[in-house]
Amino acid sequence: MPDSRAFVQHLSEALPYLQRFFGKTLVIKYGGAAMDQVEARLAFFQDMVLLRQVGIKPVVVHGGGPMITAMLKRVGKTTEFIEGLRVTDAETVGITEMVLAGAINKGIVAEINRQGGRAVGISGKDGNLIEAVKHRPTRPGQDPARPEDGIDIGFVGDVSRVNPALLEALDNSGFIPVVAPLGVGSQGETYNINADTVAGAVAGALRAEKLILMTDTPGVLRDPKDPATLISSLSLPEIERLTREGVLSGGMIPKIAACRQALEAGCKVCHIIDGRVPHAALLEIFTDAGVGTLVTLS
Amino acid sequence: MPDSRAFVQHLSEALPYLQRFFGKTLVIKYGGAAMDQVEARLAFFQDMVLLRQVGIKPVVVHGGGPMITAMLKRVGKTTEFIEGLRVTDAETVGITEMVLAGAINKGIVAEINRQGGRAVGISGKDGNLIEAVKHRPTRPGQDPARPEDGIDIGFVGDVSRVNPALLEALDNSGFIPVVAPLGVGSQGETYNINADTVAGAVAGALRAEKLILMTDTPGVLRDPKDPATLISSLSLPEIERLTREGVLSGGMIPKIAACRQALEAGCKVCHIIDGRVPHAALLEIFTDAGVGTLVTLS
Amino acid sequence: MPDSRAFVQHLSEALPYLQRFFGKTLVIKYGGAAMDQVEARLAFFQDMVLLRQVGIKPVVVHGGGPMITAMLKRVGKTTEFIEGLRVTDAETVGITEMVLAGAINKGIVAEINRQGGRAVGISGKDGNLIEAVKHRPTRPGQDPARPEDGIDIGFVGDVSRVNPALLEALDNSGFIPVVAPLGVGSQGETYNINADTVAGAVAGALRAEKLILMTDTPGVLRDPKDPATLISSLSLPEIERLTREGVLSGGMIPKIAACRQALEAGCKVCHIIDGRVPHAALLEIFTDAGVGTLVTLS
Amino acid sequence: MPDSRAFVQHLSEALPYLQRFFGKTLVIKYGGAAMDQVEARLAFFQDMVLLRQVGIKPVVVHGGGPMITAMLKRVGKTTEFIEGLRVTDAETVGITEMVLAGAINKGIVAEINRQGGRAVGISGKDGNLIEAVKHRPTRPGQDPARPEDGIDIGFVGDVSRVNPALLEALDNSGFIPVVAPLGVGSQGETYNINADTVAGAVAGALRAEKLILMTDTPGVLRDPKDPATLISSLSLPEIERLTREGVLSGGMIPKIAACRQALEAGCKVCHIIDGRVPHAALLEIFTDAGVGTLVTLS
Amino acid sequence: MPDSRAFVQHLSEALPYLQRFFGKTLVIKYGGAAMDQVEARLAFFQDMVLLRQVGIKPVVVHGGGPMITAMLKRVGKTTEFIEGLRVTDAETVGITEMVLAGAINKGIVAEINRQGGRAVGISGKDGNLIEAVKHRPTRPGQDPARPEDGIDIGFVGDVSRVNPALLEALDNSGFIPVVAPLGVGSQGETYNINADTVAGAVAGALRAEKLILMTDTPGVLRDPKDPATLISSLSLPEIERLTREGVLSGGMIPKIAACRQALEAGCKVCHIIDGRVPHAALLEIFTDAGVGTLVTLS
Amino acid sequence: MPDSRAFVQHLSEALPYLQRFFGKTLVIKYGGAAMDQVEARLAFFQDMVLLRQVGIKPVVVHGGGPMITAMLKRVGKTTEFIEGLRVTDAETVGITEMVLAGAINKGIVAEINRQGGRAVGISGKDGNLIEAVKHRPTRPGQDPARPEDGIDIGFVGDVSRVNPALLEALDNSGFIPVVAPLGVGSQGETYNINADTVAGAVAGALRAEKLILMTDTPGVLRDPKDPATLISSLSLPEIERLTREGVLSGGMIPKIAACRQALEAGCKVCHIIDGRVPHAALLEIFTDAGVGTLVTLS
Repeated sequence: MPDSRAFVQHLSEALPYLQRFFGKTLVIKYGGAAMDQVEARLAFFQDMVLLRQVGIKPVVVHGGGPMITAMLKRVGKTTEFIEGLRVTDAETVGITEMVLAGAINKGIVAEINRQGGRAVGISGKDGNLIEAVKHRPTRPGQDPARPEDGIDIGFVGDVSRVNPALLEALDNSGFIPVVAPLGVGSQGETYNINADTVAGAVAGALRAEKLILMTDTPGVLRDPKDPATLISSLSLPEIERLTREGVLSGGMIPKIAACRQALEAGCKVCHIIDGRVPHAALLEIFTDAGVGTLVTLS
Repeated sequence: MPDSRAFVQHLSEALPYLQRFFGKTLVIKYGGAAMDQVEARLAFFQDMVLLRQVGIKPVVVHGGGPMITAMLKRVGKTTEFIEGLRVTDAETVGITEMVLAGAINKGIVAEINRQGGRAVGISGKDGNLIEAVKHRPTRPGQDPARPEDGIDIGFVGDVSRVNPALLEALDNSGFIPVVAPLGVGSQGETYNINADTVAGAVAGALRAEKLILMTDTPGVLRDPKDPATLISSLSLPEIERLTREGVLSGGMIPKIAACRQALEAGCKVCHIIDGRVPHAALLEIFTDAGVGTLVTLS
Repeated sequence: MPDSRAFVQHLSEALPYLQRFFGKTLVIKYGGAAMDQVEARLAFFQDMVLLRQVGIKPVVVHGGGPMITAMLKRVGKTTEFIEGLRVTDAETVGITEMVLAGAINKGIVAEINRQGGRAVGISGKDGNLIEAVKHRPTRPGQDPARPEDGIDIGFVGDVSRVNPALLEALDNSGFIPVVAPLGVGSQGETYNINADTVAGAVAGALRAEKLILMTDTPGVLRDPKDPATLISSLSLPEIERLTREGVLSGGMIPKIAACRQALEAGCKVCHIIDGRVPHAALLEIFTDAGVGTLVTLS
Repeated sequence: MPDSRAFVQHLSEALPYLQRFFGKTLVIKYGGAAMDQVEARLAFFQDMVLLRQVGIKPVVVHGGGPMITAMLKRVGKTTEFIEGLRVTDAETVGITEMVLAGAINKGIVAEINRQGGRAVGISGKDGNLIEAVKHRPTRPGQDPARPEDGIDIGFVGDVSRVNPALLEALDNSGFIPVVAPLGVGSQGETYNINADTVAGAVAGALRAEKLILMTDTPGVLRDPKDPATLISSLSLPEIERLTREGVLSGGMIPKIAACRQALEAGCKVCHIIDGRVPHAALLEIFTDAGVGTLVTLS
Repeated sequence: MPDSRAFVQHLSEALPYLQRFFGKTLVIKYGGAAMDQVEARLAFFQDMVLLRQVGIKPVVVHGGGPMITAMLKRVGKTTEFIEGLRVTDAETVGITEMVLAGAINKGIVAEINRQGGRAVGISGKDGNLIEAVKHRPTRPGQDPARPEDGIDIGFVGDVSRVNPALLEALDNSGFIPVVAPLGVGSQGETYNINADTVAGAVAGALRAEKLILMTDTPGVLRDPKDPATLISSLSLPEIERLTREGVLSGGMIPKIAACRQALEAGCKVCHIIDGRVPHAALLEIFTDAGVGTLVTLS
Repeated sequence: MPDSRAFVQHLSEALPYLQRFFGKTLVIKYGGAAMDQVEARLAFFQDMVLLRQVGIKPVVVHGGGPMITAMLKRVGKTTEFIEGLRVTDAETVGITEMVLAGAINKGIVAEINRQGGRAVGISGKDGNLIEAVKHRPTRPGQDPARPEDGIDIGFVGDVSRVNPALLEALDNSGFIPVVAPLGVGSQGETYNINADTVAGAVAGALRAEKLILMTDTPGVLRDPKDPATLISSLSLPEIERLTREGVLSGGMIPKIAACRQALEAGCKVCHIIDGRVPHAALLEIFTDAGVGTLVTLS
């Protein structure tokens, strides 16, 4: 039985990783192709169930930009973007919340549960998980000492505080938390927050073993058009240098910022990996070769 | 200080009720005017926080029909009704879920939390809380032994099983669960379920001390147009009789059915109360006079 | 139903105080008019049961001077007073203990239990709760470095150590401790101790949230004969000044000393309130206006 | 070192008894000579501390008749006896309570604690430990179906219910409960109850391993004047027979009744032993020969 | 990366088995080729560590016949066999114990621990795990009602009682118990017991999910010389029949008897598998095809 | 009953020691005459059971030199000694392990269990309790900075690390650990270690209350031939001095070294006592006079 032999051989190879990550918390930003492609999607849900089953604790934070855009279009709401950020009025944030917390979040939950998992979908408002303040992009020529002079683009938020008690309660009872990237303001208002940012803040608050950000590229690339320029590991000081040199740009900026926040708050290591590869998360966790880009404190 | 005197007097009067309900679970269906009127709404949220604070465990199940209808209209979706039930295709149930689990549910959570509570919003899909099967209204002349011949109105569900582990985990950690009335089918599909029905099923599964259904009438009325015909208490046998006599009808039918299901599964007593009265739930729990209609097993 | 409305309104107003004091320990010196007047007495017992029911932890320390005096008279025992303190020979302390621990203490317990509480009466000898040494009033012209030269007035004690394990065991099991102000010496001998002093020492040892001393005046008065001269708050430095100025005198001296000891050992705040007002303790705890005199560290 | 050798030999001989009684509850009625003679008294207190130290759980119930009589005489209160029971008016029961719960109880506590124990003194009113009803001796010719026609001798009580939660809380925290034989009526009134009766009721409620009643005789004697007529063991049926034959009489009657009540409620065995012998309780527990009279169910 | 792909695919395929056996106890008789061949031996130790790591609880029972025989020879001790059982005098059982509990047991422990496990080696004497009585083979013509007339072959034992407290303590602390097949008699004497028998008794006492017996054949064979005659499953009734037909014989007899004992005491299923195949235990547990012979109650 | 009287008197005298050592861990090196003489042996086992029964936690470490020598002789293995240490090749350490872990260890376990105890025998390999490295006696003229140049005498070990988790698991479940003095090397190989050394290392790792080393002399003697020269107490500085003076020599050297290691790692006090006296351990623990030599830090 040649295949059985490979099967048990592979299980045996997993042992050192099972030992290393037992009881550890992994925060995983789920989005992009891993959410859109059928095979990668199903594999991701299986991975989450497998991790929980062997005593590793995944916390999933998901995004949902395209579906929000589609819904806004459906209800005839046009959107303006400033500095790459959607200007978000009260109606827009309401629709955003419905899509994130009502549609995408519960869809992920149902699929994980179909694989035999026990997922629970929450948003940053539940149990006051994510407290937020208004995000104000800097105006040209703005006095850096006065962030309150930044541009008002509505209900787009920055994380001001994470209250992880709800995540801990769910963890202790064996549930897999699935988090929609919304925050709650001091008056109870809702803020839309970048999902990478939320994942970084949660990984920091939980002092997670790993933060894994799934993207649609093989990792951080020196030349975004050439996969062969993958940077396999980066420390925060190197990031400083590469940023000054203009190598890091575009969608990588918030991911790198999320890694920085997580690492500085006590998360051990971060990974930016290619979500288009089925079981990418499992590969990252259970092999030494590693996939994508490793980001470390120093 | 006359007012202070009344204040402490009232606190003292609450003592016997505090003692009686300490540690007990109350399932409360929240909807109608209590949701729409500002004063009643705020009072309701305060009541939930107060109950949890004094060691009583509320579980809130909410409805949301009008907001669903508005959203469907907004996206240009027309709706057909059969036997008073919305024919619910896949797109409709998707929008229903977004409104219930994404908008209404999180709004209630944020408001309870603003009052100092620790609410967590979930739907019946989270932790497989509510397992559901397709609800098929009976066709005229249908063989009663073949319920599967009933009319297919899409993703409208009946509760087939309640898995209360998630509610218990939240309770044990001091959270107030707020439940959107959705269920999950055996293939992971979503079902919209009547909120009274969900509340009754949850009250039964938790063997709750009380099921409280909030309505827009003073309770069960002999003559729906005459508040003076309030029936202050009803047993299941009396309900049988009144149903045969045609006294119970319209929106009371699902409420009465929810009470019956809850009582038969082990819930102690049920109350149908007037949600238009601010603090109606608190009044029901903390006074002997009682408000609305009490429904008991026998 | 106008009264019901006020009732639920009042319950709602209590919410912030319920949240603030949940799980906190309050040490209450009970005595004077609150013990002698029927209405205030009954109200006090209800208050203790209510506090425990909502998760606040009262510890009651009671006095009993008049009843001791009556009993000594009854058995034909004459008493000499030195510096306002009863000279207490072995027989006197025996009768004192019988009255405090056997009559008054058990009477309070039975009344709290009649209100539905679960009180347990103990003295400072039980579980070695209050360890004591002989109190020796200073002789005129005595060398301050030699307190052992003070006057021997028998079995009147100072607290030398509090062992709170018994209070904690009772608290953890949901009981309300009621403490008779007696201490035990190193040879097992009994000491009568001022009840304010015991309350202060216990509040300090438990690092209580509040020490509440019930008196027969509205609080600390600048002019003991004029209630309008109530001092609503006092810090320890202000007390120093007022003492030097001779404003504080008589029965207030031991109360102020008890506050000082409690605050210096870690009790948060102290209150000297008017026990003649029914539900005075509840009013102090559940209103912001406050009653009587607040004593704070600084 | 001959004595050391005997010392360790004796410790070794204790082993089987330590194993047999570990974690078991023993209820011990303490009174008579064991209370009055210095050597027996001190030995008793050491025994209680030793038992608790090795993981056996003693509950002490004490009497106090002579001291009550002395105190009543002291305050000039004359007493009438009916059927050997003191007619107990409100003042008498008040003095009784002071003596039992205030003087004797706290004296025992202090002495046990001096031996290094952690005793706590309570009465049957604390934590509603002993609920009582009026005891009415039967009138000559009274209809047995109407016990309420019995003689009213005031506040002398029968145990109607034992609530052992307080004893369990003290046990779990490592304290030795010392119980004064008083009960509380439905209106909060105090009842004096025979200490043997209380011990029997408590032993039954706790399903104790042993009830030990200390007396001033070697045990149950066929001829009260001849120690050689000691009956070493008795079953309930044998007691029936001896009672009919008139062999059992006087002070043995309530002791035998206490044994019966304890055994019928689930206490394993009862012992009536000679409290004049120092360490009598320890001897009974740690030797096979046994001392006094063993009383068993059958 | 083709191999990585197979790797994660195989991990995913393990999920249903991980879910099914989580928290379950498996008793595994380890011996024969799995002990003697280097590859199979190493694979076995890895398997035990892997099982424990993923929350499955293995209990290993080992044999050791050849090594005992070698040691007896070494010390010049000749051995007689009766009915296939070694006649075991006091010296022989002493050497047997040294080899089993001192050499083989500790060797297995050290190897499991080298793989990162936390094994603890015990024998049936530790914590009185296996209580035993003398095994007496039946004499020809012996009265079946008098087993005590059987042949005395010395210190060969039958299991009379299993005390699983030690196994549970080790399990709860995350250790893997490794058990040498020895029992202790009522006088403290040692008995050598067949390892299959011990495994069956332990599996029954623990109500294990599986008993796995490793042999040097593919399972139960109809013709011991022809692997193609493997019987893939057997119920107890079928075993009765095959035994009567003489199909089951030789070394299979004690294995079948061990299965019967385990199943009748509450073990779910038994497997007789080919220990020569590396990772045989893992293959049995993690594949549906199954390997060897399954033995079930009915 | 004069003897009973002495019996209870002795129990009472034990009380202060029971109080002082309750819950404390005592590590006891068991060997020499206490192992060989029937009376002392039986007394020792009773003592261990008694200690555990009264809540004191013994950990037994045993030796076994003579039995190892006998077994080696039996199998025709000659032994060379260098610096008083047995040169230990692979075969020798294998036989040593069999004798220590398989014969002596399990014999002690069975005897303790016969006295009603719950002993569990382990070696330093179980749960990786004792990690070891090769012990290399210093060569004459060897560079002290190069311990690796010492003489290779095979599998004789030094303790490099103690992992007390297994001892704690056994303690928490009420078992008495009995430890064979073997260690495990980084490649899984076995090392024979001096039992005094193991006891000292374990006492240090557990921060034991006492380390008790049983010898065949009255303690440390100034003149080994004259018991009258017993040194009743020694501090580490005094040991330094006596060592320099050449007073300490022979078998006392490793015992003194074990005491030093234990004390420096946090063990409170050490005792070197005369194991030939029955119940020597109990006498040491339960009398103030003390027996043998007390070794303290300073």
